[in-house]
Amino acid sequence: MVEEIKEGDYVLLYLDDRRSYMVKVESGKVFHTHKGFINVGDLIGKSFGAHLRSSMGTEFIALKPSIRDQIFKTTRGTQILYPKDVALIILFGNIMPGSRVVEAGTGTGALTMALASYVKPSGRVYSYEIRSEFLGIARKNLERAGVMDYVELKNKDITQGIDETNVDAVVLDMATPWLIVSHAYKALKGSGAFISFSPTIDQSVKTVEELKANNFVNIETIECLVRRIRAEKGKTRPETLMIGHTGYITFARKTIIE
Amino acid sequence: MVEEIKEGDYVLLYLDDRRSYMVKVESGKVFHTHKGFINVGDLIGKSFGAHLRSSMGTEFIALKPSIRDQIFKTTRGTQILYPKDVALIILFGNIMPGSRVVEAGTGTGALTMALASYVKPSGRVYSYEIRSEFLGIARKNLERAGVMDYVELKNKDITQGIDETNVDAVVLDMATPWLIVSHAYKALKGSGAFISFSPTIDQSVKTVEELKANNFVNIETIECLVRRIRAEKGKTRPETLMIGHTGYITFARKTIIE
Amino acid sequence: MVEEIKEGDYVLLYLDDRRSYMVKVESGKVFHTHKGFINVGDLIGKSFGAHLRSSMGTEFIALKPSIRDQIFKTTRGTQILYPKDVALIILFGNIMPGSRVVEAGTGTGALTMALASYVKPSGRVYSYEIRSEFLGIARKNLERAGVMDYVELKNKDITQGIDETNVDAVVLDMATPWLIVSHAYKALKGSGAFISFSPTIDQSVKTVEELKANNFVNIETIECLVRRIRAEKGKTRPETLMIGHTGYITFARKTIIE
Amino acid sequence: MVEEIKEGDYVLLYLDDRRSYMVKVESGKVFHTHKGFINVGDLIGKSFGAHLRSSMGTEFIALKPSIRDQIFKTTRGTQILYPKDVALIILFGNIMPGSRVVEAGTGTGALTMALASYVKPSGRVYSYEIRSEFLGIARKNLERAGVMDYVELKNKDITQGIDETNVDAVVLDMATPWLIVSHAYKALKGSGAFISFSPTIDQSVKTVEELKANNFVNIETIECLVRRIRAEKGKTRPETLMIGHTGYITFARKTIIE
Repeated sequence: MVEEIKEGDYVLLYLDDRRSYMVKVESGKVFHTHKGFINVGDLIGKSFGAHLRSSMGTEFIALKPSIRDQIFKTTRGTQILYPKDVALIILFGNIMPGSRVVEAGTGTGALTMALASYVKPSGRVYSYEIRSEFLGIARKNLERAGVMDYVELKNKDITQGIDETNVDAVVLDMATPWLIVSHAYKALKGSGAFISFSPTIDQSVKTVEELKANNFVNIETIECLVRRIRAEKGKTRPETLMIGHTGYITFARKTIIE
Repeated sequence: MVEEIKEGDYVLLYLDDRRSYMVKVESGKVFHTHKGFINVGDLIGKSFGAHLRSSMGTEFIALKPSIRDQIFKTTRGTQILYPKDVALIILFGNIMPGSRVVEAGTGTGALTMALASYVKPSGRVYSYEIRSEFLGIARKNLERAGVMDYVELKNKDITQGIDETNVDAVVLDMATPWLIVSHAYKALKGSGAFISFSPTIDQSVKTVEELKANNFVNIETIECLVRRIRAEKGKTRPETLMIGHTGYITFARKTIIE
Repeated sequence: MVEEIKEGDYVLLYLDDRRSYMVKVESGKVFHTHKGFINVGDLIGKSFGAHLRSSMGTEFIALKPSIRDQIFKTTRGTQILYPKDVALIILFGNIMPGSRVVEAGTGTGALTMALASYVKPSGRVYSYEIRSEFLGIARKNLERAGVMDYVELKNKDITQGIDETNVDAVVLDMATPWLIVSHAYKALKGSGAFISFSPTIDQSVKTVEELKANNFVNIETIECLVRRIRAEKGKTRPETLMIGHTGYITFARKTIIE
Repeated sequence: MVEEIKEGDYVLLYLDDRRSYMVKVESGKVFHTHKGFINVGDLIGKSFGAHLRSSMGTEFIALKPSIRDQIFKTTRGTQILYPKDVALIILFGNIMPGSRVVEAGTGTGALTMALASYVKPSGRVYSYEIRSEFLGIARKNLERAGVMDYVELKNKDITQGIDETNVDAVVLDMATPWLIVSHAYKALKGSGAFISFSPTIDQSVKTVEELKANNFVNIETIECLVRRIRAEKGKTRPETLMIGHTGYITFARKTIIE
């Protein structure tokens, strides 16, 4: 049973490793690229992974968008958090199907989307964003990714407190994470995970100090470097340019003083 | 509603960032450490995250084991694959709740356990292992982690073929991944993910060559370096020693030639 | 006694960390930049390090060109070897004042220039280059750097053999270093250093195999990553982009079988 | 003309990449290892690089100690500064034959030894050390390396000022480098190099702030990671463990305000 492309699905029109386009499939729709146009409607009924040709004869492939594709497309223009960081936040933060997670700030919803994809179907993401202008953008991105059912978007200032209790994780991607530590302590269940992503080391240091003062243990700050390798027989070498820094991630777990 | 520790649960008795012990909670059980003994049964009815003292007065914390803890405890002694690699395999491989995943080889079940934790409740991991002596160990580890229901352990040689079809991902952690590429092509759905972890660059190069010859695209090989930072006001610095290499991960996606 | 800028000296007109210009000082000379023109002749008699203003009022600083500046300016357009690699080649290769060094290939002379700067005044660099069109460029760069007296440029194919004997080091930056290993053995004194820089790992592996077969010991292959940090109070972080790869460097020492 | 080992020379008795011993050659001397004893006196008249056998038949090689070997042997037990850092300090700091360099603190003399090896024969290192107990150790190490003639050891507190003027570089490996910035400005010639090595980022940030306030330009802070590769046909991979951090190096150049 092959998974067929349907009206309304999103596809990633893949040209090469540098160029791909996320497009909604609609009958009769024409998508224009610098390599000619593509009759997107013709994809209906084909399999994901199908090859197709533009009007100029260039080959594209209709991939099914992955979480990583969606992170890249969602953060276009404001990108700070990379898929590598999202991956570590989720696994090191023990965020799983069924987890209840508080997040701030929502931004364009890239991290929200990834979190929602992993807590579904029974978990939930409570996402705080003080800047109301972002919530519409985030909602649109979450709907496109098909995970809006697992998210509660909240137009609230998380520095004023967290409504939820007994949550599995609190994930922060915001300028002043140290202000949220005591709120996070109240919101988390025992042994629950505090996770914070920050571009500067100064933010991490302030956050770690607060965590130490608030009954968290197993506090650690890491950075993650991903290096792409050109694996080719007889001329294998890492790529010349790499991303040298996105941010530091701090993890900690709540302890209970009875 | 605080999550209470019950008879039969596993706890991570956390002493410090270097020393922690995974213990099953049973009434009357005594656990011996070099810091004195601990009456593990006393934990029943307490909250995860609770502090407790050994007979010598040393403080331990009863954390709830995370996936990362379980990976570390499961791989003890044979460790190759690290949590950082598992995190990238899952997110970059688009493995999610509901995914059907073929894996080889099972080994002690560390990767199987992580995969199962993320495909549950509706997904499934089909795990191939030719060495029958490992299957008992893996089953025990998977049962301890509570994910055996989502796994099918198969005592089969994956180089002879894959039984499943239309799967979302094929994940390989074995010596000769290039021998599995054509089998993986048949097993995968269109746009599905091929993922292979290898300690040496030679294995990656051979695998990439096979992928290029078998209608896969978006082929990339990466390595991931995680660096721990001592974030401490006035004396912040990365740790002196780090893991400089675990392995290379190769990702690719199946295309359909109609 | 301040070091004054003289007619004929080179200065580095430094605008900021991204933009600087290497200029020869001549009386009456005008140098044009996108920030206005500079009367370069006015620098005569001033101290290195002096501030000066362009016709548009932009401040430049007349730095004395360092070896690193000269490497950057010399390799413009063909850059493979970076100052970080040159630094390790020299120190790990034990190349010092007085050393006699064989080098191939000369190219534009960037590495030759650095080697000559460190073996002077009593040492010497014998630099082999098969492509005669490069020798003129290299000579000009070496003369500009003031080190031509310590270099012998040789328009010869080093794969055919090395004329010199009893040298302290053989340094290779060429496509097929493994072909030179037996020649290097003959040219080197006992305990002397073999050093080879290669962009691909395949070249390094072939070279290491040859070294093992030719009575070299202490063979090691390394790569060097330099990361720039934005050290700024309250917002310290590594730079986003970094050079992820230039090449691998292999070192070895000759042993004597008597 | 082969370089012969003479009475009084030092040799590096090399067993493998992990084990080597620096020994002074004296006639009749016996050196004991866990692989049996070696008649060191027998080396007199042999070539550097010669193979020899211990009483138990194990093969050693009598290498000529390199600067890198000497750094390793000198820092044994107090090692902070690694050869990779020394290499960058020297090349990026434009320290060359003929340079006059101020250094603090001397410590065991590892960096002093390397600096002296590169400024010789006409340059000089002025090395400040407030702790008098270190000066004897440093002198012994510098004499062993044969570079004491190029060094002036000064039992002085560099935070009180620098005696020398018009120097090419000031190199600091001490706890409070920011206190030396204004002294370094006075001591340096125009365009001269300030270089400071610090284990923590906090030290680097303070130093950079002082440099900005004291007419230095081209200020940069870097860290250097060296990764060892096991280059072996069919099983090439980086080493599992690596040094993840030694320190940050800050470079700057003095400008002249006339």
